[in-house]
Amino acid sequence: MQRRVAILGGAGFIGTNLTRYLQKSFAEIVVIDNNSNSSAFFEAVTKEFTNVRLVKVDVADLESLTNSLSGCDSVIHLASNADIAAAAVNPVIDFENGTYLTSNALEASRRAGVSRFIYASGSGVYGDTEGPHSESDASLAPISTYGASKIAGESLVAAYSYRFNMIGRVFRFANVVGPMQTHGVSFDFINKLKKDRTRLDVLGNGTQNKSYIWVDDVSEALKFGLMDDQSLQFDVFNVASEDTITVREIAEIVVEAMFGDRHQTKINYASTNEGWPGDVPYIRLNNLKLKSKNWNPSRSSRQAIEESVNSMISQI
Amino acid sequence: MQRRVAILGGAGFIGTNLTRYLQKSFAEIVVIDNNSNSSAFFEAVTKEFTNVRLVKVDVADLESLTNSLSGCDSVIHLASNADIAAAAVNPVIDFENGTYLTSNALEASRRAGVSRFIYASGSGVYGDTEGPHSESDASLAPISTYGASKIAGESLVAAYSYRFNMIGRVFRFANVVGPMQTHGVSFDFINKLKKDRTRLDVLGNGTQNKSYIWVDDVSEALKFGLMDDQSLQFDVFNVASEDTITVREIAEIVVEAMFGDRHQTKINYASTNEGWPGDVPYIRLNNLKLKSKNWNPSRSSRQAIEESVNSMISQI
Repeated sequence: MQRRVAILGGAGFIGTNLTRYLQKSFAEIVVIDNNSNSSAFFEAVTKEFTNVRLVKVDVADLESLTNSLSGCDSVIHLASNADIAAAAVNPVIDFENGTYLTSNALEASRRAGVSRFIYASGSGVYGDTEGPHSESDASLAPISTYGASKIAGESLVAAYSYRFNMIGRVFRFANVVGPMQTHGVSFDFINKLKKDRTRLDVLGNGTQNKSYIWVDDVSEALKFGLMDDQSLQFDVFNVASEDTITVREIAEIVVEAMFGDRHQTKINYASTNEGWPGDVPYIRLNNLKLKSKNWNPSRSSRQAIEESVNSMISQI
Repeated sequence: MQRRVAILGGAGFIGTNLTRYLQKSFAEIVVIDNNSNSSAFFEAVTKEFTNVRLVKVDVADLESLTNSLSGCDSVIHLASNADIAAAAVNPVIDFENGTYLTSNALEASRRAGVSRFIYASGSGVYGDTEGPHSESDASLAPISTYGASKIAGESLVAAYSYRFNMIGRVFRFANVVGPMQTHGVSFDFINKLKKDRTRLDVLGNGTQNKSYIWVDDVSEALKFGLMDDQSLQFDVFNVASEDTITVREIAEIVVEAMFGDRHQTKINYASTNEGWPGDVPYIRLNNLKLKSKNWNPSRSSRQAIEESVNSMISQI
């Protein structure tokens, strides 16, 4: 079958890597993006592959989005606010650039006759409770509007799947890292150290301990979502490595990778274990459900951080 | 303390009863409503009580809503799409008149300095699974966009409560019945029989079996939400009677109450147990958590249906 797959928000960090990954296996990749957050590398990807097409449409524009999905059998919805911390002072960001976009993406997909909808969710659905979390642990009590937007998004995918006979698949990512990153903790550290190599001010006390996932492992999970059989109308999977790594370890990795020596940089920690209001300091996800589908992470959290840091430094 | 309580969507069926109930205990009740669905009885209530004030503002209008909440310590948010079945063909109704209004209500409350937010949720958060449901049974897999809107709404209340130091309370109502109803299964039956007493066409096969709750019991639960101590930032309660009643039984109650004899009316049933696409045919909620707070339903489901039917017939 000649499949045409649309990626909403596909010109950002995950989307650029995903587009490159999926173009090998599908007839056409339609990247729909408003370019608000687009990766500097995305242009190269569209030029490199003839079966990748960029459509500059805002997911908030229901009519244009519906038109641009014409002929697509599947949608992968990545479009979302990328700056989680910003919502601490302006919480409607997570609604307008989160829940609202997901509602629009689903409604446009329904109207365009899309048969499969894949949603990028995250660990925020588990609230601030002890992990490792299995998929069934998600509650309706998030501690941030980012978490609320992911819960709302997942629930909308479920409702549209059951109601309108779409296949719905949700993937809850750990922290995604890899080439061409545009944000994230190590990205921030590298940029701070480029300005001043003598000191590194860390948000939080460095004990935050989270699971990271290599971006190609995320792409492989989403590809599984495109291929998964239709026996279940709706299903949910965590996408994470088994281990975790602390912010303190990441800071030391970045300093050593940049300067070959960590002793000329003073790393300063704050007193709280929250990086920002609403940050969940400890995130560990159970990945056994996706592993039972023959998916396996290619890198541990530490390996993923080390490789992404080296990649970002070489890009500077 | 002189408390000023705002009720969003307060001119509808539940709101009219709630306003009358709460005005005895609070200094001022501010009813905020766009009058799209307002009860014919609400006008009488505003005239009867000098401490009830109606403000005609749409909850979708963030700026006007923020202004109208000035000086209110608590908000009860009832504004929502009342026609659940309509979303089966136009699912964005549940988003625009559900999730979106809740996001706006919370953001306006935050900006206006409201310290307590009470949200009217429903059984849709439990999806199509076997009950009786305890509060912790809610999942992120609703089968209707109505359910998705309630899950999204609850999650937003939790996030705002934890993030912005508001007290958040969620109440999941069974089917609410009572005087001045403007919709619902027995309301529909009465209106059909007014047009043709010889036949009653029932949506579904009559085996749908749900819990009903008397509207004053809902008001008492919401009053508890206004008074509940602040030891928990966020909490959730079912509001339901213990028993259930089938649609077939309700049809027979209505016919007998209207005509004193059920044998001159032919009751016709459809073949499916869904009243409409996305209807959950069996709804039973565990009410022990709210009962542990000294709340008790004054009527069983059958008593609540019988009394509300008699009330509606006498109003015709």
